[in-house]
Amino acid sequence: MDISQIRFASRYDGISGSAIREIFKMLAVPGMISFAGGNPSPASFPEQELAEIAKDQLLKNGKTLLQYGATEGYGPLLESLSAYVEERFGFKASPKEILPTTGSTQGMDLLCKALIDPGDKIVIENPTFLGNMQCMHLYQAQLIPAPCDEEGIETDALEEIFRTEHPRFLYVIPTFQNPTGKTLPLERRKKIAALAAEYGVIVAEDDPYRDLRYTGEELPSIKSFDKEGWVVFLGSFSKVISPGLRVGFMCAEPGLLRKCTIGKQSTDVHTALLNQAIVDTYLREGRLMPHLNEICKAYGEQCSTMLSLLGGCGGIKSFTKPQGGLFIWAELQDDMNALDLLKICVENKVAYVPGTHFFEGGGHLNTLRLNFSMSDVGTIKRGMEKINDVFTKAAK
Amino acid sequence: MDISQIRFASRYDGISGSAIREIFKMLAVPGMISFAGGNPSPASFPEQELAEIAKDQLLKNGKTLLQYGATEGYGPLLESLSAYVEERFGFKASPKEILPTTGSTQGMDLLCKALIDPGDKIVIENPTFLGNMQCMHLYQAQLIPAPCDEEGIETDALEEIFRTEHPRFLYVIPTFQNPTGKTLPLERRKKIAALAAEYGVIVAEDDPYRDLRYTGEELPSIKSFDKEGWVVFLGSFSKVISPGLRVGFMCAEPGLLRKCTIGKQSTDVHTALLNQAIVDTYLREGRLMPHLNEICKAYGEQCSTMLSLLGGCGGIKSFTKPQGGLFIWAELQDDMNALDLLKICVENKVAYVPGTHFFEGGGHLNTLRLNFSMSDVGTIKRGMEKINDVFTKAAK
Repeated sequence: MDISQIRFASRYDGISGSAIREIFKMLAVPGMISFAGGNPSPASFPEQELAEIAKDQLLKNGKTLLQYGATEGYGPLLESLSAYVEERFGFKASPKEILPTTGSTQGMDLLCKALIDPGDKIVIENPTFLGNMQCMHLYQAQLIPAPCDEEGIETDALEEIFRTEHPRFLYVIPTFQNPTGKTLPLERRKKIAALAAEYGVIVAEDDPYRDLRYTGEELPSIKSFDKEGWVVFLGSFSKVISPGLRVGFMCAEPGLLRKCTIGKQSTDVHTALLNQAIVDTYLREGRLMPHLNEICKAYGEQCSTMLSLLGGCGGIKSFTKPQGGLFIWAELQDDMNALDLLKICVENKVAYVPGTHFFEGGGHLNTLRLNFSMSDVGTIKRGMEKINDVFTKAAK
Repeated sequence: MDISQIRFASRYDGISGSAIREIFKMLAVPGMISFAGGNPSPASFPEQELAEIAKDQLLKNGKTLLQYGATEGYGPLLESLSAYVEERFGFKASPKEILPTTGSTQGMDLLCKALIDPGDKIVIENPTFLGNMQCMHLYQAQLIPAPCDEEGIETDALEEIFRTEHPRFLYVIPTFQNPTGKTLPLERRKKIAALAAEYGVIVAEDDPYRDLRYTGEELPSIKSFDKEGWVVFLGSFSKVISPGLRVGFMCAEPGLLRKCTIGKQSTDVHTALLNQAIVDTYLREGRLMPHLNEICKAYGEQCSTMLSLLGGCGGIKSFTKPQGGLFIWAELQDDMNALDLLKICVENKVAYVPGTHFFEGGGHLNTLRLNFSMSDVGTIKRGMEKINDVFTKAAK
């Protein structure tokens, strides 16, 4: 027998790896202006502070940080996270309701592991974050797209889905959603928390962009309206400190969190302690809020520059006006194809992600996602000029 | 509906978390001498070197290390690992055949994800490493224990299992096995590689203790006899640099490794880049071999002290004589019960792990695992005296 003929587990049927990651490989050429990525700006990384923190922590506390740790998390970080979620997200979580994860991606993996048998149903926003859709597909879940309007999930339609489909959970990115940049309004947040309890459906609230707000008023998290533990909060430091450190966290009802903790034991035992200690120190020393003020200033200018240029861009039928986050979502005229136009754009050294990749079942060929965090204002102007040229020609 | 009544995924049926971790909680009292753990000695951690490396890497290369990285791994580490496995493990692996993992525990998780549908068969040594048994159970595999003698897996019996049971893979810890300390001899290593190719069965070779050799001659890895890619090598730096950093790696045939890489995309995206860069620097600057010489000297004395005291210990029928690693395995007289005796030992402030936990299906109540890495020579003497007292009384 030849090893190239081995049978893989059935969870891989139809899975081919991230389409977006394949696009990124195509973009690794000099001079490319990429609005495709979802990365935070390297300019936002506080590497000098983190270098000092890493060294200090290892010198002061190395014997602990280099040893095996508890799956349940590094004690000091659990304390910092408990204070952080109360201050920033408006809900209380004791250390027993918090699990540090190796990026919030792991939170979704552990939640699927805890809840999903093949064929079980998960309700998603459509479009939504591709990486977590792939995670759900690997658990052989059936993904049910919820109808969305310009403010996000329509809660009447959601109730009907809860009532008739009995999903295991709802996956929602309520603030500056990826890929659309939309933010779910207050009343819908309350309603989703109420529906979760009424129908006994877990809500996975993924809120990594929330702290990147450039205009408008903060909204309470869905979890802050959760009385009985139906909402699982997935938190991340990837967009506000560093994605390379791979530190996120989840907050959940203790029984459910225990299953996630057991799942994590045999996945990576625990999240690296040095990385947990770095994030703990950053939070504990009050460094996050001043850092956020600084990065939001730059991101805000980039966002408003792109929004103003989209207003005059050829071929564009409509686009979202996010008050924060990393992404703007645009619709081309109905007969235009963002997949085909990407090829012409890439020849002209500018790129975005076609929106079709973010929809369960594809389609929506006239949509695209634009990222503004990775390009400075000048680059955004040059890139949008190129896009305007390509789209204007195609619209004729 | 009350959230305490939610249904969890069927993979959790019969899973209750690690029994060993529950024992560890019981041992967190002052004055306890624990031979129960499997941790490397904190004295072995090079925290001052790592503090300098972490700081330097973040200052020189922070913009890269703090950004998202490729799931496939940090380029410089892939090069270092390629050189490392050729030098230390005697096989060639190009960067395309290597995947850095978040501890080698993640390697087993990704391998099960790639290969195991519920009910699929995995052949294990019996006893074997508890953490990976839990991982296999969470993938709903059927575990088939292979007969083992004093040198490890009996290859004639293994061939019969391969022929009749068609397992998806064999899991083997060939060097200073956990929990037994046994080392598989050369001929059996060759034979396992040959059987894998003949019957088309993947072999997962987990070799984290290999570099901790105190006496005797090194043996080639099973993977070094693998011509066609049937052997997957799981490597770890947890026992030789630091477990808290959570950096391991797997080497596999590119088609299989690709499935593991896709699985990793939606598990933790990539292993933290700072941690990959720290291990890369440590290897690249030639720090590992001098460090190993130093820690093996101390561990070797601890090992020989415990072995000599076991020779005169009451109640002991036999024990293994490992040439390296972290563990010694002992059998009590047939009517003695290591589970019951642990309670008396803990009252006397000394602890081990009852062997029954390491067997699929339990039983073997007269066996135990002793760790010598976490206690200095004086502590080993005091602890073994306490154990001798308890076992001698029980043997009467």
